[in-house]
Formats: sequence, structure tokens, C-alpha cells
Amino acid sequence: MNQVTFKNDMTVELVEVMGSDLTIARAAWVSTLGERAEEGDPKRVAGLINYLMRDSHMSPFEHASMTFRITAPIFVLNQHVRHRALKFNLESGRYTELKPVFWVPGPQRKLVQKGKPGHYEFFEGSEEQYLETLEKIADISQVAFDAYQDLINSGVAREVARALLPLNIYTTAYVTADLRNLMHFLTLRRFTEDSTVPTHPQAEIAEVAEKYEEALKFHFPLVHEAFIKNGRNV
Amino acid sequence: MNQVTFKNDMTVELVEVMGSDLTIARAAWVSTLGERAEEGDPKRVAGLINYLMRDSHMSPFEHASMTFRITAPIFVLNQHVRHRALKFNLESGRYTELKPVFWVPGPQRKLVQKGKPGHYEFFEGSEEQYLETLEKIADISQVAFDAYQDLINSGVAREVARALLPLNIYTTAYVTADLRNLMHFLTLRRFTEDSTVPTHPQAEIAEVAEKYEEALKFHFPLVHEAFIKNGRNV
Amino acid sequence: MNQVTFKNDMTVELVEVMGSDLTIARAAWVSTLGERAEEGDPKRVAGLINYLMRDSHMSPFEHASMTFRITAPIFVLNQHVRHRALKFNLESGRYTELKPVFWVPGPQRKLVQKGKPGHYEFFEGSEEQYLETLEKIADISQVAFDAYQDLINSGVAREVARALLPLNIYTTAYVTADLRNLMHFLTLRRFTEDSTVPTHPQAEIAEVAEKYEEALKFHFPLVHEAFIKNGRNV
Amino acid sequence: MNQVTFKNDMTVELVEVMGSDLTIARAAWVSTLGERAEEGDPKRVAGLINYLMRDSHMSPFEHASMTFRITAPIFVLNQHVRHRALKFNLESGRYTELKPVFWVPGPQRKLVQKGKPGHYEFFEGSEEQYLETLEKIADISQVAFDAYQDLINSGVAREVARALLPLNIYTTAYVTADLRNLMHFLTLRRFTEDSTVPTHPQAEIAEVAEKYEEALKFHFPLVHEAFIKNGRNV
Repeated sequence: MNQVTFKNDMTVELVEVMGSDLTIARAAWVSTLGERAEEGDPKRVAGLINYLMRDSHMSPFEHASMTFRITAPIFVLNQHVRHRALKFNLESGRYTELKPVFWVPGPQRKLVQKGKPGHYEFFEGSEEQYLETLEKIADISQVAFDAYQDLINSGVAREVARALLPLNIYTTAYVTADLRNLMHFLTLRRFTEDSTVPTHPQAEIAEVAEKYEEALKFHFPLVHEAFIKNGRNV
Repeated sequence: MNQVTFKNDMTVELVEVMGSDLTIARAAWVSTLGERAEEGDPKRVAGLINYLMRDSHMSPFEHASMTFRITAPIFVLNQHVRHRALKFNLESGRYTELKPVFWVPGPQRKLVQKGKPGHYEFFEGSEEQYLETLEKIADISQVAFDAYQDLINSGVAREVARALLPLNIYTTAYVTADLRNLMHFLTLRRFTEDSTVPTHPQAEIAEVAEKYEEALKFHFPLVHEAFIKNGRNV
Repeated sequence: MNQVTFKNDMTVELVEVMGSDLTIARAAWVSTLGERAEEGDPKRVAGLINYLMRDSHMSPFEHASMTFRITAPIFVLNQHVRHRALKFNLESGRYTELKPVFWVPGPQRKLVQKGKPGHYEFFEGSEEQYLETLEKIADISQVAFDAYQDLINSGVAREVARALLPLNIYTTAYVTADLRNLMHFLTLRRFTEDSTVPTHPQAEIAEVAEKYEEALKFHFPLVHEAFIKNGRNV
Repeated sequence: MNQVTFKNDMTVELVEVMGSDLTIARAAWVSTLGERAEEGDPKRVAGLINYLMRDSHMSPFEHASMTFRITAPIFVLNQHVRHRALKFNLESGRYTELKPVFWVPGPQRKLVQKGKPGHYEFFEGSEEQYLETLEKIADISQVAFDAYQDLINSGVAREVARALLPLNIYTTAYVTADLRNLMHFLTLRRFTEDSTVPTHPQAEIAEVAEKYEEALKFHFPLVHEAFIKNGRNV
């Protein structure tokens, strides 16, 4: 029996940043200042960024970017790569042996849903439901990883053996997003009291989004403020 | 124990087609005929399409599209959605209970790889390897699906329960591709004697690509001919 | 002196349509019906499309497309090609001699603007302003086209000679848009009493947008209805 | 008569850089090293980048970007914005009065073309052709700018008055490109003895491409070397 690790957090590390609030303003100033775009008045950056966000002039936000390294279960990465304007490189189950790290729900994870598709509400389950979930997910992870190892040890190609691995195995990705597309991701994948777009993201990808948003807030405070103020709708 | 189905084929159904070889030619004729683009000489379509392909004038190929419904294991769909210029809608493991249909390798599937990442060659394995692979993948599929059903019957949300399902479970997608992006997909995901780009697609996605290519050849014979003639390099 | 034509309308011809309201619904049904996506209940199409639009589930709208042939002044086409998710082929001033057709404002065109950049309001000018505008634009068009012809007759390359042509010369383009991106274009390039996004398009591109919208309404009436009902905000 | 400036160079200033050769390698190492992508061996960067380029594994090149401020005639910017994967902000002829700076061909500019559309060859013209071209382009620029100023002074909106300005007036843009798309631009817009894709860019946009390429070579020497070595074909 292989040693298997269980966890439930999403790792998000900021790898690289391009630009700042001022970059966005300068890209916008091109439209009125042309060659002298860099001479715009820094005191007007906050007002300008808010105006751009409010009136949906989104192209200036494409000139700033962030790159993240994230480690998350495959079911989260699958939802993530659907955002096609982001740029991805993914750990390969063809080129490399996947490591025995699996997601299980943490004790805070609400397990029971009610309502129609697209409008679920989630509720805490019973202690019994939680323990059953934990046990079943952990058991399958263990037997699947053991079978995966056996096949590899028998000389079967990784790309075939990995077919039996469950969706909760962790893998790693590099993700680069410009701010326009990052905010579109946040619009759809995080719901807060400021949201004006109804959205029902799965809790695990919402946790990734929250970590991205912290980086946005830290490195682009005026952009983040305008995003919140205008209803998180990009 | 739930009734589980095993199979190894990829289902690809053509749902809709937009345009024809002539459409591509007309889009190209706009550059020289302007308003009279539709008056170009039909006898020159083949030569024009070949010229466009050879000299990498690819924008005319974007005005024709095909939509497919495909049913394939998740590990194939994961590779597929990485082609970000395609348009996808996917069966949801959050909104719906997944059906117990799982991929196992067919008897022709080469199971043993040699060489470095990115340059594998594949060889048939032994009868023993094949049987072990079949048994392990089938066993895990069965126990995972049973655990999935148990959790759902206990009232656990589908989005949590599906975390233990393996990557070989089948799901369905709608895929729309314009011809430029379809041929880029074929360039990377199918390797034939005509290929000039070295590429090493996994056999299962190459099977999907082959089925797309049949539809391309049937509905856009001149585009397909030019694609082959110019080295399958888009 | 060359014979020059003046006009002020935008020509928009629908060349091709892919899909229907039902196509959008079927692409959405993949998420819940999987392989049986085509079996969804046709009576529920209207409600489903409205729900998708309201909750910003926009990917199903990407599986339907329209192709237009449009003829418009270059200053309009320049604004148009900024919508990068659309697909374009343009008449070439390098490959072909441009024809002497030029835009002048029509008598209804409001000529005088007030307010700050991004928030102009337009007002009718005086009769005198209109006549001066007409005369100057027509005069420059005529002398520029004559000079262009002279250079070409002297053996100068078209790509050099066209540098002196004004932005009001008409050229033709093929434009293909999926419905998601077409509605995004309409959101930004047309302002009506139903608009919830403040936008200030130039009158000439708004006229193109209006013609696209007529085609949307005719071929996809339920999509159009949902677009209006949800505030023209895609 | 307004003071008008004539010139023929393209201004390209590098505004911002994201990443380095090492960034590309790390993004690629995610596929084999996962969470330890940053621990790849720096001595293997050159070989890895060359392998990625040769085998068309282009996604790692999307994690590095450059932003340029460029000032060029409108006929060059029109060709430029057709590269839809780049990100642009453009000086606005609606929001601001354009400045009287116009392109005329320099004495080195070959003026005479021979051959079919898409396959022109260019030759120097006679002294007489050069002087006629210079004079006509300069004259039209002058009379057009005077008429533009007159209309603006009469209270006509800038967006209407600019319709008579010729395509050789200079404006400014911010352009952001990731390396994959920058190299695709260079593939199509510059032809050198290393090119394997036949391409016939207009001389003026080739000059912009050359300046971009200098920045690529300076900041990403290994990427540039691999680009050349593999035939300038991205």
C-alpha cells in the first residue's frame, strides 16, 4: 500500500507581475495624449480607472498581467482551463508520474445541496455524512493510486495507467491572466455581497479565485477598488 | 453493485456545418474583388485555396465552421479543451449524475512506451500486461462508481461525490471549430505520413481527430486536399 | 478629374447563418442531458435562453454564427476590426485599386458635439456648418482620388499611392461573428432606451450595429428578446 | 496654412517586459516537474527552448510579454490591429485633435511593384517618380489638414472632420504581445534570409517588426535564437 497524502487547500503562488495601476492609466491615456501617454497626471489615476470600469472600456486592463503557480485537484483545474483567454501550462500525466496527493473535503465544506441546477444552495451535512464522504473518497484514492503504481511497475505507459486516477488528485499549473480576463474570472468564480452577477461557483474554485483576488488587491489596489465599486461585473 | 459499461471508442457526430470550399474562396476574394466577392470564378477555387494554405493566409478559413457532439473519457476531453480557440459546452458533473460508462483500452491499444517525454514510441505489451491493465481499470471504475452512487444516495452533493470518479468516465461535449482552428487541432493531434510537424498525440485524442478529419474531407474536400498537400501544418 | 461618388449609407448583407435559437438551447442542454442534448423540450427554449442570458452563461451562444458582407468607410471599418473576437477579411489597398466612392455626412447627421471625451452629446449644426462640411470633405476626396490615380498611372505601387487616400473612402469586408461576440459588439456599438451599459458609439458604426441587430432578431428571435430583456449587456 | 511635419520612420519604444528566457523554461517544466517547476536546471534552458520551438509546443511562450508604444501612419496601424491576439490601445480621432505629422516615402523606399497580388516584387523607381510621389502625398496632406482645421474651427465634431484625413497621418498606440503572438507577427510581417514561410509584408510594417525583433533579441536571446534556427515559423 502506497503512502498517500490527503488535503483540501488550494495553493496559489504569485510568480510574476507586469504593470501597475499606473500602467492601466497610461494605456488609456494613449487615446487622448498619444505619444505623451506617459505624461498623464498621476493624481487622476484613481478617477480614470473608475471611469473605465464603469463605462466598460476594458482594453486598457489587458496591458497588465499576473502569472500564478497553482496546485489544485484536477476537478478544479478542469473548471479553470475553461477560461480560454487565460494562458496555461499543466503538469502532464503523460510525461510524469503523478504524486499521491488527493483532495478530501475539509470539515467546513458544506456537503448537501438543494435547488435546481444552476441555483443550488449548500448546507452542512450531518456528522455521519461527512465521515462517510471522507472515508469513501480516501478509500478510492488509495486503491486507485495502488493500482496506478502496480500498472506502472508492470511497464504500462503512464498515459494509460492514469486513466484510473480519480478527479481529486492534485496537479500543478502555471496560469497567466491579464487583468481584464482575471476580473472576468473573478466575476464568474467568486460570489460576494458586492456581486451584481448571479453566480454559483463551486467552493473549491472560489477559493482559488479568492487567492487571485488578494494578489489583485495588493498589486493593483485602484483597479480592485473600481472592480468592487462597480459591482464585480467584468 | 451498479451495472457498469466498458468501451473504448470515441463517438463523434457532426451536428452543424457552416459554409463550403466556395465560402473560403469568397472570403479571400474580398481582398481583391471587394463588393463583388461573390462573383469570383468557381473554377479557380481549388488553386486559390491551395495558395492560401501554402502562404499561410489563414483568415479566410475562419468563416467556415463545424459543430460536433463528442462523447469521450474525461482524460480525452481535458486534452481537448486546451485548444482555446474552439468553443465548448460540456456535460456537467455538478448539474447531473454521471452515467456508469468507462473507458478501457481495446486489444489494439499499444500499452508500453519507450523514449523521453515528448518523444515516446509505443509498443504492444504482453497478453499479461493487457489483462492486468483491463482488470485494474475495470475494478477501480466499478468500486469508484459504487462509492459515487452511495454518496449520492446518502444525500451528498454531486459536485463533491464526483471527486472520486476516475478520469476514464465518459462525458459528452458540443464542440464548434472554424476550419483554421480545426486544422490547427489536426496538425497537433494527428500524426500521419504527410505530417511535417513532429507531434506525438495520445492515441485516444488522435482517434477523435481522425473523425473530425473525415468530416472536413467530406464537407470541404478542397480545403482538406490543400491541408494534406502543404504538410498538415496550420 | 475622375468621376467620384458620394454617399452616406452602410451596406450590410447577410451571407451565411449557422444555427438557430434551438442550437443555443441544445448546446446548453449538453450540461444536463449529455449525449441526449438534442432531446431537450422545444417548449423550454425561450425560458432557457433567458436564464442563460440573465446569469451570464454565455458559452452556448458561441455555437451559432452569422457572416456579413459590409461596405463602409475606412474610419468605420477601423473601429470594427478592434473587436478581436470577430473574424474579418478586408478589401486590400495593396492588391487592388480602390474605387472612388466616399462618405459624406447625410443631412440628418448631427455635426456638433458638446461635453468631455467619452461623454459627448451631439447636436445638429447650422445649415452653414453642414454645407461647409460637405464641401470640404467632397473636395478633399476628389483631389485625393485624382492624385491617387495620377500616381498609379505613373507606375507607383498601389500600397504607396493609397497612403494619401482619406479615411472616408469605402471598402468592403467579410465579417463572421458568433452570437456571444455579436451581442458584445451590439452592447458597445449601439445605444437604445434598453441599454444598461453607458456607451457612446459613433453614429456610423451604430448604423452597422443596427443592421446586424435586425439579422439577429430575424434569425434568432428568442436570443434577441432575451438580449433586450436583460439590458443589452453581454 | 498650417505647419505640417513630414517624416518616414516608425517609432517603437519598449514600455514594459514580463519574464525572461527562464520564465519560458519554467512554464514548460510545469509539465514534468509540477510544483517544483522553478527548480529546473538553468543550464538546460537553451536546449529546452529550442526543443519547444522545433516541435511546436508553443504554450510556454505565452507567459512572457512585452508592451510597446509605437507611433506610425494609420495605414500601418490598420495592418497591425489585424493581429487579433495582440492587445491595443489607440490614439482616438474622436477624443482628440490629431497632430499634423504625415508619412512620405523616404528616398530608399522602393516605389514600383511587379508581379501578381500576394507576390509582388519591388523596384526603385525613377527620380521623377519619387519626386511626383513626394509632392502629391505632401500636397494632399497639407490641404487635408487645413480643411480638417477649418472644420474644427467652425465647430464641427472631430469624429466628422477626421473623415477627410489621409491614411498617412501618424498616430500612437500601446501594443502588448506575448512572445508566441509576437513571433507569429514576426513570421508574417518580416521576411529575411532565414524565413521558411513565404511572406510579402509592406516595407513600413516590416520596419515595425524589425524593431520589435530587436527587443525580443535583447530581452529573450535564447527564444530569439531558437526562432531563427527553426525557420521563423510560429
